Amino acid sequence: MKTDIQIAQEAEMLHIREVAAKVGIEEEDLEFYGKYKAKLSDELMERVKDRPDGKLVLVTAINPTPAGEGKTTITVGLGEAMAKLGKKALIALREPSLGPCFGIKGGAAGGGYAQVVPMEDLNLHFTGDFHAITSANNLLAALLDNHIQQGNALGIDPRQVVWKRCVDMNDRVLRNVVVGLGNKMDGMVREDHFVITVASEIMAILCLADDLEDLKKRLGRIIVAYTFSGEPVTADQLHATGAMTALLKDAIKPNIIQTLEHTPALVHGGPFANIAHGCNSVRATKMALKLSDITITEAGFGADLGAEKFMDIKCRMAGLKPDAVVLVATVRALKYNGGVPKDELNKENLDALAKGIVNLEKHIENLQKFGVPVVVTLNSFVSDTEAEYEFIRKFCEDRGCEFALAEVWGKGGDGGKELAEKVLQTLETKESHYHPIYSDELSIAEKIETICKEIYGAKSVVYEPAAKKQLARIESMGFGKFPVCMAKNQYSLSDDAKLLGRPENFDIHIREVYVNAGAGFVVALTGAIMTMPGLPKVPAANGIDVEDGKITGLF
Amino acid sequence: MKTDIQIAQEAEMLHIREVAAKVGIEEEDLEFYGKYKAKLSDELMERVKDRPDGKLVLVTAINPTPAGEGKTTITVGLGEAMAKLGKKALIALREPSLGPCFGIKGGAAGGGYAQVVPMEDLNLHFTGDFHAITSANNLLAALLDNHIQQGNALGIDPRQVVWKRCVDMNDRVLRNVVVGLGNKMDGMVREDHFVITVASEIMAILCLADDLEDLKKRLGRIIVAYTFSGEPVTADQLHATGAMTALLKDAIKPNIIQTLEHTPALVHGGPFANIAHGCNSVRATKMALKLSDITITEAGFGADLGAEKFMDIKCRMAGLKPDAVVLVATVRALKYNGGVPKDELNKENLDALAKGIVNLEKHIENLQKFGVPVVVTLNSFVSDTEAEYEFIRKFCEDRGCEFALAEVWGKGGDGGKELAEKVLQTLETKESHYHPIYSDELSIAEKIETICKEIYGAKSVVYEPAAKKQLARIESMGFGKFPVCMAKNQYSLSDDAKLLGRPENFDIHIREVYVNAGAGFVVALTGAIMTMPGLPKVPAANGIDVEDGKITGLF
Repeated sequence: MKTDIQIAQEAEMLHIREVAAKVGIEEEDLEFYGKYKAKLSDELMERVKDRPDGKLVLVTAINPTPAGEGKTTITVGLGEAMAKLGKKALIALREPSLGPCFGIKGGAAGGGYAQVVPMEDLNLHFTGDFHAITSANNLLAALLDNHIQQGNALGIDPRQVVWKRCVDMNDRVLRNVVVGLGNKMDGMVREDHFVITVASEIMAILCLADDLEDLKKRLGRIIVAYTFSGEPVTADQLHATGAMTALLKDAIKPNIIQTLEHTPALVHGGPFANIAHGCNSVRATKMALKLSDITITEAGFGADLGAEKFMDIKCRMAGLKPDAVVLVATVRALKYNGGVPKDELNKENLDALAKGIVNLEKHIENLQKFGVPVVVTLNSFVSDTEAEYEFIRKFCEDRGCEFALAEVWGKGGDGGKELAEKVLQTLETKESHYHPIYSDELSIAEKIETICKEIYGAKSVVYEPAAKKQLARIESMGFGKFPVCMAKNQYSLSDDAKLLGRPENFDIHIREVYVNAGAGFVVALTGAIMTMPGLPKVPAANGIDVEDGKITGLF
Repeated sequence: MKTDIQIAQEAEMLHIREVAAKVGIEEEDLEFYGKYKAKLSDELMERVKDRPDGKLVLVTAINPTPAGEGKTTITVGLGEAMAKLGKKALIALREPSLGPCFGIKGGAAGGGYAQVVPMEDLNLHFTGDFHAITSANNLLAALLDNHIQQGNALGIDPRQVVWKRCVDMNDRVLRNVVVGLGNKMDGMVREDHFVITVASEIMAILCLADDLEDLKKRLGRIIVAYTFSGEPVTADQLHATGAMTALLKDAIKPNIIQTLEHTPALVHGGPFANIAHGCNSVRATKMALKLSDITITEAGFGADLGAEKFMDIKCRMAGLKPDAVVLVATVRALKYNGGVPKDELNKENLDALAKGIVNLEKHIENLQKFGVPVVVTLNSFVSDTEAEYEFIRKFCEDRGCEFALAEVWGKGGDGGKELAEKVLQTLETKESHYHPIYSDELSIAEKIETICKEIYGAKSVVYEPAAKKQLARIESMGFGKFPVCMAKNQYSLSDDAKLLGRPENFDIHIREVYVNAGAGFVVALTGAIMTMPGLPKVPAANGIDVEDGKITGLF
């Protein structure tokens, strides 16, 4: 069987100018990065802004398992299938991070015959957006420490620096560090922390900003530290905003690439959904809606994380209205949720399926709470059986959801036609009554409680003492109207990664709460969630190579 | 008066395909990064490799002063002037680092009407080469610490990790850090250090590698640490080589941009000359020699650093033969070397000039030791007087050097014609007898002594005890045949930045010696030289902004 990278490398790509032309983008609006990647000009956005929006379809999934779900694969395949059905379709995805690419998860370009290409470029540096974010993040950090070093006129308390350095790498030893050792000329000693770039507030800002002006305002509002008297210090006060904006001037422009079947895909921005808000940029989604009849977009990890944040943060802030949601599952993942060990997932097991399907059930219920019609799809595997399919189909239809099998991994767009038809039927016959799950007016604590109880199914929310104080400070600073960005492990609806299925009677533990004043949300860290991943015993990097100029081992 | 960025932004650039066509590069060999930047394909290198080489001219300078010398300005202006004289000329430069751009020095694209453009792109992310190097550097670091964390099968001594993390930023607090704090899952605690990206061994490797295969071999040889029993541990042993190569696959391709007069310039790689080897990539220089009649290249800082390393490291390793050297000075800088304070440099002062010209004299002598004909040029300033010019002209001609005034800052290529003619005359009438200043066969200590005495004019070399031990270890490991890369402050011929002119009777203090086994040289740190700069009281970043989509304040 061919690997994803082999399939991708054998693909005959079209010049990106031809792909872009499919949705009416002319060459003058493209800034090429080689033949197969381009950025879209600011002028294009300006020119199409008064057009009516196309339909917006979100692809999300059940909680991820080691069995694999293939959400990006479905997103890409669905876009391809829409194109096969004669629809003017655009796919809107996030850019992958280097961290997982060298760690355990691998790249993120879809799989099999439902991939976006060039996959190596996408998974490595792509058009440099993440590097720009890393640079802007670390420039702000350097200016902050330099301010302290050069006299500290603002009276920054080195114990209350909240801005962290970042690196686009899984590097656990950088979670907790001490900087500034040496002598007087080597800076003030203080404890510091690195996060992975996808967790940087600048990643969130880039993904939520409307345009360069909005980006600049948001950057300026970033709170980097507190003074000895407890006042917040912002990026603007450090005179860092202009230079950061200069670093991000190109990164804010959406990127366009193609699927293996030459369907255009806008790939832009990439916050993780467990430690950040999990959606591609607002600009890419808005651009896609103006350029196409149907935009297929994706949010990270399971619907408890990515979809919730898509609805409550991205759509709320950007004024977007999703018309339908596609919820991805696999027979194997549902059986895994039902307690089947990984090496027995290939056997039919209806009992385990019945036991594990409660995870899917909870996500269906959750998505329906947002008022958006749901289509469930199964990313098919050869080991699946008809009986298993029928069981799941009936389960979904009983709950008012359309159901479709998807065989896009093996067949590309052709394997997604049934799904595409169900989605089109849903768009035509079911109206979306989208609304966020909580209103702006609730307190931050009430918002957290709503998400934990309504979405996760928790019994109650337990705060560490420090988190309670942080919450009070955030409210007193006037940020109580902000939405909440939960940081939670992706594997369980709870904050304990081991509780599969549909856990009940559990508490959510809030360890830390902080405000991202530039992004415009409050982050609540739950359980043991980390904003800097580590590498596994055998990192994926060990298997990557370049032979005769071709990259191998990237997956 | 217009600023450099204003002049650059007003320029009418040609599409890079038209610029490249001037030296016979066809569109199929260009990988566009927007309309005005491109990378050159590996196939082009392959196709031209049997052509005869053009002439190679190195531009270097006296020791830099706050008065400004304008070496890049001369390099660019000379290339433009050659083109005006009907020569097929190519310029080969280094890429700027973000560090000085946000710090004190500003960008590095030349000045006035002798600039390469687009200068904002060049000074910010350009084509992402430095980001690729940073990523590869930090992937290796993450894999190293992960190896220790996951059982340390190789027996790496955490006290003897020599591989440092890097960031393309002036960030003094990262010079000395402790990483791995927290608990067991957060890694092994150890002291660590960050260098600026231009000082990373990977920067040197990228600039010295012949091709992707050579790059891979060099990366694999990098020594990252020593075991408890004192054995070196390499990148190959960490299985890091393939993934690092994948990250550098595009970065190794030379970039092409244009001057304000549309002369093509290859801009590739960018080690600083004080803490690294200071030359653009071997691949770019070799490519330029195949594509043009005259290649004008530059080495960083003064001739004691950049030119020495160009001759002793780059040309030696790559088999290059420089045909002439242009040595840049300014009247103001020579007077500054003669003790005139910065605010009095605008007054004619022949006494001070006579006192300060010894700096120029020493560099002329040094360059002649390499057997290469020297042309001295003055980057003219409005405050210069005829009497000052005549004094310098006679001084140079007495020492067997051609002399020319250059007015390229204000006049572009037209202002460089006199210089270009002198260079052409030198190429036609004087033969280069280039040879390095020391032979491979000398010991490392003898090589260091040769550079310190012959080039710097030192009385003797004094080693710190640790450096002596390091030297012995390096010799015993079999790296004695390597050339030496001195790390020394750029302001003085000595290792004390305050000793201007032509210091005598001084010692050079060697603080640390280490081997860059992948780059293929031994680094000797002298005096107080730092591989991670700091930001000044008022960083240049404070003045950078984006207004109406245009970057301002970059200089």
